Amino acid sequence: MTAMKWWGWGLDGVSFTHEDKPELGPFILDKLGLDVTRTTERSKRFEELDLPDPILPGQLRAALEAAVGSEHVTADAIDRVIHARGKSIRDLIRQRRGDLPRLVDVVVRPGSEEEVTAVLEAVIEHDAVLIPFGGGTSISGSLEPEPDEERPVVSVDLGRLDRVLSVDAASRTARVQAGVFGPALEEQLGAQGWTFGHFPDSFTHSTLGGWIATRSSGMQSDRYGDIADLTRAVRVVTPHGTLATRPVPSQSTGPSLREMVLGSEGRLGLITEATVHVRRVPEERQILGYLFPTFSAGLAAMAELAASEHQVSVTRVSDAPETAFSFATRKQATRLDKVQSKALQAFLTRRKGFVLDQMCLSFIGYEGSAGHVAEQRKAVGKLVGRHGGLCIGASPGALYDQKKFDTPYIRDFLLDRGCLADVSETAAPWSELADVYDKTRSAVHGAFAELGVRGYLMCHLSHSYHAGACLYFTFAFPPAPGGADMIEQYDVVKHALQQSFVDTAGTLSHHHAVGTEHAEWLAQDVSPAGVTLLSGLFDAVDPGGHLNPGKIVARAPDREEAGKPA
Amino acid sequence: MTAMKWWGWGLDGVSFTHEDKPELGPFILDKLGLDVTRTTERSKRFEELDLPDPILPGQLRAALEAAVGSEHVTADAIDRVIHARGKSIRDLIRQRRGDLPRLVDVVVRPGSEEEVTAVLEAVIEHDAVLIPFGGGTSISGSLEPEPDEERPVVSVDLGRLDRVLSVDAASRTARVQAGVFGPALEEQLGAQGWTFGHFPDSFTHSTLGGWIATRSSGMQSDRYGDIADLTRAVRVVTPHGTLATRPVPSQSTGPSLREMVLGSEGRLGLITEATVHVRRVPEERQILGYLFPTFSAGLAAMAELAASEHQVSVTRVSDAPETAFSFATRKQATRLDKVQSKALQAFLTRRKGFVLDQMCLSFIGYEGSAGHVAEQRKAVGKLVGRHGGLCIGASPGALYDQKKFDTPYIRDFLLDRGCLADVSETAAPWSELADVYDKTRSAVHGAFAELGVRGYLMCHLSHSYHAGACLYFTFAFPPAPGGADMIEQYDVVKHALQQSFVDTAGTLSHHHAVGTEHAEWLAQDVSPAGVTLLSGLFDAVDPGGHLNPGKIVARAPDREEAGKPA
Repeated sequence: MTAMKWWGWGLDGVSFTHEDKPELGPFILDKLGLDVTRTTERSKRFEELDLPDPILPGQLRAALEAAVGSEHVTADAIDRVIHARGKSIRDLIRQRRGDLPRLVDVVVRPGSEEEVTAVLEAVIEHDAVLIPFGGGTSISGSLEPEPDEERPVVSVDLGRLDRVLSVDAASRTARVQAGVFGPALEEQLGAQGWTFGHFPDSFTHSTLGGWIATRSSGMQSDRYGDIADLTRAVRVVTPHGTLATRPVPSQSTGPSLREMVLGSEGRLGLITEATVHVRRVPEERQILGYLFPTFSAGLAAMAELAASEHQVSVTRVSDAPETAFSFATRKQATRLDKVQSKALQAFLTRRKGFVLDQMCLSFIGYEGSAGHVAEQRKAVGKLVGRHGGLCIGASPGALYDQKKFDTPYIRDFLLDRGCLADVSETAAPWSELADVYDKTRSAVHGAFAELGVRGYLMCHLSHSYHAGACLYFTFAFPPAPGGADMIEQYDVVKHALQQSFVDTAGTLSHHHAVGTEHAEWLAQDVSPAGVTLLSGLFDAVDPGGHLNPGKIVARAPDREEAGKPA
Repeated sequence: MTAMKWWGWGLDGVSFTHEDKPELGPFILDKLGLDVTRTTERSKRFEELDLPDPILPGQLRAALEAAVGSEHVTADAIDRVIHARGKSIRDLIRQRRGDLPRLVDVVVRPGSEEEVTAVLEAVIEHDAVLIPFGGGTSISGSLEPEPDEERPVVSVDLGRLDRVLSVDAASRTARVQAGVFGPALEEQLGAQGWTFGHFPDSFTHSTLGGWIATRSSGMQSDRYGDIADLTRAVRVVTPHGTLATRPVPSQSTGPSLREMVLGSEGRLGLITEATVHVRRVPEERQILGYLFPTFSAGLAAMAELAASEHQVSVTRVSDAPETAFSFATRKQATRLDKVQSKALQAFLTRRKGFVLDQMCLSFIGYEGSAGHVAEQRKAVGKLVGRHGGLCIGASPGALYDQKKFDTPYIRDFLLDRGCLADVSETAAPWSELADVYDKTRSAVHGAFAELGVRGYLMCHLSHSYHAGACLYFTFAFPPAPGGADMIEQYDVVKHALQQSFVDTAGTLSHHHAVGTEHAEWLAQDVSPAGVTLLSGLFDAVDPGGHLNPGKIVARAPDREEAGKPA
């Protein structure tokens, strides 16, 4: 797997462009006052970076080389830069600026669980710090060393652990190494007729271990479940030996160790392997587009769908601003497209009573046997109709399905034009979604006003459950020219979003983890006692603070005071 | 809620009898050599018990009375005896014998979360021990003070916290106090048209808090999920304040605190409230009986059903010995029953090729709209047919549904006749179920042989999941007359079962928890590192060892050595 750009999302040579989307430039100019034809900012070149020397005592290096082989230990600048951070907007801005005061000191690439164990032993023996690295897609700050860390920091890249070890066809599970990337996992499983069915937006560049360590969720979670549901058992190298849970379907053996490892962001050890659910590649797979007259009609339909006997794989409803953005990203329309579009608009406004700028685009996915898909489509179509919505066929869904992994490139495109863009997401009970949505919109528009900027905020519902759903917000604004540093301006908006989530009935994140970005809101979400339990667990497992310290909860006060390990 | 018998299961005056089941006496005589018409053993009478004085310093008592009111603090003998233990077979035997060297010292009944907090504070301040008590149905030893405990032991009976506080109809959740018993919960929800849908065998006498603290599973788990799935959020009074998680459908906020509380058996604090899933009472609810030619045919059918698109609420297949037992517990048959039964037998043997003593009884449940139920029944009927099975209609299922909560009374009936009977259950991947079943049967029959007893062992599959299912074993034997004490003989068989579970691909328990009964196998199940994580968590939350010490994992070695709190 090729590493991502050190300064941005995705592979070198791949980027987002407005040029094949005729309506996008005018749309952004209208909404943000931003001229996308002018590129104003560029990342520093790698050669321009001023990088700190690695803190890497010879004995530690020797121990790491003994653990994994010298060819798998590197302190090369590019490796240290790539492994120093994830891909949050804060990360991208600082990388592009060359703001890199504290990198990781060395990158090691173990090839087996035994080698992972030897690495952890070396780290503890030499009083270093260990940060596990999967694909590096974290947008929560989970990968960065603490700024004042004086101990050597070892990034453990799990990328060599990339194999499906076995498939248990009768139990529909697979033993999989944690470092495998999404595409390689699907390819290995697909060769045997299976699928994992976990497709987060980061799919192309993220790994199984990373998904588990951050409680990831994929677009088909309505059918397949979140990573927490898909992960049947884990193997984790800890300071107390390898934690190995059994791949049993359910068990009553005290507090769930599996559910402690899920979301642990490296604080309990290194995930080396998991046994996960797999399913037969479905006979048929469809994602259909729908239109609803309003966002609240769309939410009501999704709530009813979740309560129904129908079975779907994807549920997604964009609000009106996101719907407008989606339409603005269409490629050059043919004459026929235009005629059809006009006919649809006429039908919607004259016959269905839609007000076009309140209209909301929705996707609902279906999987299974052809008969099952046909039956579910029909039943869901009726349900949608009861909420004033209508089906607009398979092509918008197919397009969404193809393009869903390209979205993260847009942030780099906008940064090149001096514009900030980012995402924040939450989950809440069905009864509270409208309140979370309304108050969060107010809070973000309040933040735009406070900054004196023209900003755009859009949102979609995705991931429906029995008791609620996820709301996923995207915002963009060109920072006020003469105002504070753009990171500070970003923080004003990000803070407004996160604070609104916990002030209403939301959670600080549905599937983006805590890291350092969201740690500030943890006590407000899970209560102060919850934070005490988590830090108690981390300190008990890792009293020396060697395992990704400072993530999820800040370092224990005694270490903070001492500034150094005991 | 009336307390259960101090010496047995269920309410005074309710018991199991063979008298209305003409085939049962002969069956038991044939299988175990036991004459059920002769009652040979009786529990001691309460007046005969020799009870230790309570360890209850005046200051502690005063603090507890200040916390909950003096009318809710009692050191009466009957309360202390009832709250001293659960209902494991070991508990029943010792209670009947009057083997009661260490009772709880005082029982308190808080009426609010504030009172629970005050009780916990008093316990910590006065260096006592606190054991939460729901319905007292534990069969894993989760409720008993450690035998050498020298500190005062406070049993906190949550029975006054018995209300459904609110229902969120849109989110299909309810806020419920933890002390509510199964029937009261269903009654309060049912009055508003809702059901919780959690029906463990202990349902009549167990509480929501107890279900959560032990990771309970109900007979309709195929549709409703286990208690872990049904519990959306928890409130828990801990030494660090009240842990309150949010009732969001899914979240990415580090290791799951909710999943730490599930199964915690009082070691992290006292569960006072939960937000749980509720569903509309279904239009139709059916449990149909089926017959399979062999147990393996039944297992294969359930595995295929779990992999299918069909939706069922209950899956259960008895092996041939359990099927024979079920038929032996039938009440007096009418002449018509007998004619029908003969016709069915003739059909099965001549037309379907069944060998009657290998035949297996199965139940599959359906819920939902009438159309949905009809559709699912039809599709599942075809699936069953492909495995050589056939439907025998609704009456066996209806009978099972009515009688399912009576089963625990049988142990007392047999103890009255000097015969031991108990249950042990596990879960395993689909691919391993046959191996777990075969090896466990061998191990148990080996144990019977070792003891020189005539024993009976039977099993059913229940609770199907994507990746596996639960196997539930029941055994009975009259202990060898001149052999070791009956508890020691019991331990030989129990040990064979549990060791077989962990030696094969099973777990030490699917839904009966760890307590003290299963703690011996915990490291073999979740790995030694897993036990270290759990004890690290418990010690971090409760460094003084005040919260139900010794359960799940034994006391920390330093406390063990010291024998007393620091």
